[in-house]
Formats: sequence, structure tokens, C-alpha cells
Amino acid sequence: MTKIIDGKLVSQKILENIADEILFLEKKPSLAVIIVGEDPASKIYVNLKKKKATELGINSTVIEMHETTTEESLLNKIEELNNDEKTNAILVQLPLPKHINTTAVIEKINPKKDVDCFHPYNVGKIATNNKPYVYPCTPKGILSLLEYYDINPEGKKVVIIGRSNIVGRPIALMLLNKNATVTICHSKTKNLEEITQTADILIAAVGKTKLVTENMVKTGAVVIDVGMNRDENGKLCGDVDFSNVKEKVSFITPVPGGVGPMTICTLMHNTLELAKQQNAIN
Amino acid sequence: MTKIIDGKLVSQKILENIADEILFLEKKPSLAVIIVGEDPASKIYVNLKKKKATELGINSTVIEMHETTTEESLLNKIEELNNDEKTNAILVQLPLPKHINTTAVIEKINPKKDVDCFHPYNVGKIATNNKPYVYPCTPKGILSLLEYYDINPEGKKVVIIGRSNIVGRPIALMLLNKNATVTICHSKTKNLEEITQTADILIAAVGKTKLVTENMVKTGAVVIDVGMNRDENGKLCGDVDFSNVKEKVSFITPVPGGVGPMTICTLMHNTLELAKQQNAIN
Repeated sequence: MTKIIDGKLVSQKILENIADEILFLEKKPSLAVIIVGEDPASKIYVNLKKKKATELGINSTVIEMHETTTEESLLNKIEELNNDEKTNAILVQLPLPKHINTTAVIEKINPKKDVDCFHPYNVGKIATNNKPYVYPCTPKGILSLLEYYDINPEGKKVVIIGRSNIVGRPIALMLLNKNATVTICHSKTKNLEEITQTADILIAAVGKTKLVTENMVKTGAVVIDVGMNRDENGKLCGDVDFSNVKEKVSFITPVPGGVGPMTICTLMHNTLELAKQQNAIN
Repeated sequence: MTKIIDGKLVSQKILENIADEILFLEKKPSLAVIIVGEDPASKIYVNLKKKKATELGINSTVIEMHETTTEESLLNKIEELNNDEKTNAILVQLPLPKHINTTAVIEKINPKKDVDCFHPYNVGKIATNNKPYVYPCTPKGILSLLEYYDINPEGKKVVIIGRSNIVGRPIALMLLNKNATVTICHSKTKNLEEITQTADILIAAVGKTKLVTENMVKTGAVVIDVGMNRDENGKLCGDVDFSNVKEKVSFITPVPGGVGPMTICTLMHNTLELAKQQNAIN
């Protein structure tokens, strides 16, 4: 019997706990989101984050900067937020306009306020099996799903398709830290299906509609779909051919309603976490 | 026909190039090595490093601190070297006495002078497929060997046994960045030999005598042995049962004379590299 992993349910439970915890805090956590330019998808994401933060009692500020903002003014703005005691968490919505060096921007954020865990210092902490200030949102969301469904990655063979800095690479390192045997596949991988067929846990994070089909998964595997694509009818879908794969596996995340809701939920968790760290020190 | 990878030869060629380059530098590169306590193996390593540096025209200073040195004095010494314009590269010989927090010490080193590439900032740069100031010595030494013997890891299946911060983890990330399909195995891995049998390139870095036997390697594979152990007769040996595996593979590193000489050679390369970076700025 295949179990559909319910990201809506799990994220709802976590969000309720966050809201409860914030209720009892004297100082409310505070998240600053910077958005540069007018990218419509980015605007939707930023609004979702602001709305969710408000619902939970997190103070959120959205800083809208013009498309033509210089890198220098953006870096100055981040410096200001780094020094602002009232700001616990800083998020710069990506992608940035092309004239801005994204790496320089990410590295400008104080690692202590790096709510996305994009700063190399924090990524390096994960890579060396140490603790970053907070873990990256989507990978941490995936771990929360596995935990909720009592799927222990220790000793399991995990295959990850995709090596992005946002998902593939950090989830590989985090699962290695949890004693999984991890393989990372990508566009240059040969005989992909031979490798995916050996996976106890298969994570697809490439952004390619229906890349993962039934013949690529082992019977009884756990399948985590991080893809967020549109199919030929414009319908939201993942990297996994869900209806084709579903019957063969033990657990699978749907799209939408699987990993998606976990990302924003972890962002809220991270904001709370950073606030607690900073208030414990002050 | 199996080729024995000759680390002595390759390191010698690289060292000659380094010496040539240093000859023409106005400011000689400068390496500071801190050793705390009296560990005999550490003393031998530090002396080897100093000797090699001197041979190449690198200024090296060994700072010997007492076994009972406090963490604070060690951190202060590092701070002093961070601020010393004449010091290009800082190395703290590990292991440190137990009363000292190794992570704190590593993180105290300015990433720009982090000749071992142990600082999380630099590790995070590798993990996100960006450039650290310099790459870690043993992993970079392995890549130099592969390059010398024209073994391109792109598209190859690489299996790494061992997940240390010094070898397993960084070499996994560096080979991923070179488009290999990478699997990391370790003490919790099940069916190890099933996995190693699929490797085009097998890297053993666990420190377990004769762990890798003939049945574990694919015919024609490339085998890199990072182990440095003593066998039952006290003879230096690696993680691979060399004579047993040798006939089956296309390339193999011996122990001694394989990866070993590459580590110190890369340390010298890194010292030169950091000096060039710093002198270019000043």
C-alpha cells in the first residue's frame, strides 16, 4: 500500500507549534525580505512569505528595491539589516537582476541572520558535519517529512537527482550526516536509471516534468519530488510521473501538496530559531 | 596492463615548477605552522613541511606551543598571524590537545590564509561549486594525479569510502564539481562491495588495512588509496590490498609513493598560491 506523504498536513502541524511558541515570546521574531525588481513569480513568493509570517506573529518587512538598484546599494541595505538589532533574519529573494553579483550579496548577509542557509560559512558547517545557524529550507523540509513518516535514512541508499545549491547539494550533505549512503546524479550522469533503481530513497530535484518513471524506481522505494513544473496542459506537476510511479513505491510526495508547503514552513521555523539564538545571547 | 600511479614523480614535477616560480618572486611566500604539544607523529609531519618549504624558497616559521597552552592563547596567536602582513599561510597541526576546541581554532584562521582549506567558509565555497582561496591538500593532490594520468572524472561513477572532513567529504564535492557521479560510503553503508563494484574510480580513505579486495573492484577501474596504515609486520600500507587488486584495475596508487607525496606538495602549492593572491592585492 503506497502512502501519499501529506506535506500540507505536516507543515500545518509544524506551523501550529511555531505559532504557539511565538505567542509566549516577549520579543516577536522579525524577518526582513529584500526583493529587487519586478519579477512576477518573485513577487508572489515574497507576498506568500509575508502573509504566512504575519499569521504566525512574526514581524516581517518587505524591502522593495528598483530593478536598476546598484549592487552597492543592495550591499549597503544588507549591512544596515545586519546591524539592526531588531532584524533576526534576512532573506534576499532570488534571482537578482543580472548586473548584481549574487555570490557577493549572499556573502554579505551575516551568517547569524542567514535564514536561507545560503552563506558559504553555513553551507561549510553542514559539509563538515557541524551545525549551521539554521538549515536550508527545502532540504530541512524534506527531513521533516521523512521524520514525520518515521523513515530513518540511516544505512539507506539515497539517490538524489539534481545538484543545485538550494536542494541537491545540501540535502546530499544533510543525509550523509544522517548516515545515509548518498549518490548525487545530474545532467552528466550516465545510465541514470541503473542508479536510481538501487535507491531506497529517491529525491528528484531537477525541474524536468515526468523525468522519473516507473522503470526507474525500486519496488517499495520512498520517492520525494521537489520538482515544480507545468505539464503540457499548464497543470502544476513535479519531476516524477506520479500516477505511473505511485503503485510501485512505499511512500511518495505529490505535487502540489508534498515538499512545496514544507519550504515556507521551514522558513518560518528558521526565523523563530534565529530569533531565539539572538535573544539568548542578548 | 595496470599502470602504477607514481605520486613521487608527479609531486616532484609540481615541486620543481613551484621552486622555479618562487625563484622569480620578489617577496618569498611565507608559511606559519603552529604545533601544540609533543605528539611525535605531529612533530615529524611539521618537520617535513618545514624542510620542504625551505628547499623551495618558502619562508617557514614553526611556532611550538606547550601541551597545556590555553585555547585563548592559541586563538590569540592565530589572530596575531592573521594580522601579520608577512604571513601568507597559516597551518595548525592537528590533532590538538583535548582541552582545546578544534572547530573554534579552525574558524579563527582568516579564510584568506587558510592553507589547509579547513575553514567552513572555504569548504562552503567548494560545496556550492565556487572557488575557495585554495583547495584542501589531499583531495587536490588526488585531482593532480588524475590529471597527470589523463583520467577525466566527468561522467564517471566515483565511489568514495570514508567521509572525513580532510579527504572523503571535500574530494566528493570536488569530483561532483568536475561532473562525476559521486557516491559516498562509510561505516553505516550496507552492501559496500555491491556499491564499490560499480565504481569507475574508487577512492579509499578510511584507514583500514586491506579493506578493499579484488572482489570489490570492477575490472579496469581506477583505484586511489589514501590509507596510511601499518600491516601485521609493521610495514606501511594503504586501505587497498594492493597485490590482490593490482592485476584487475587500469590504474592504482601504491602506498607509500602514491597519494602521500601529493599532500605536502599541494601544501607548498597552496602557500605559493595564497602569497600570490595577497601580493596581487597589496
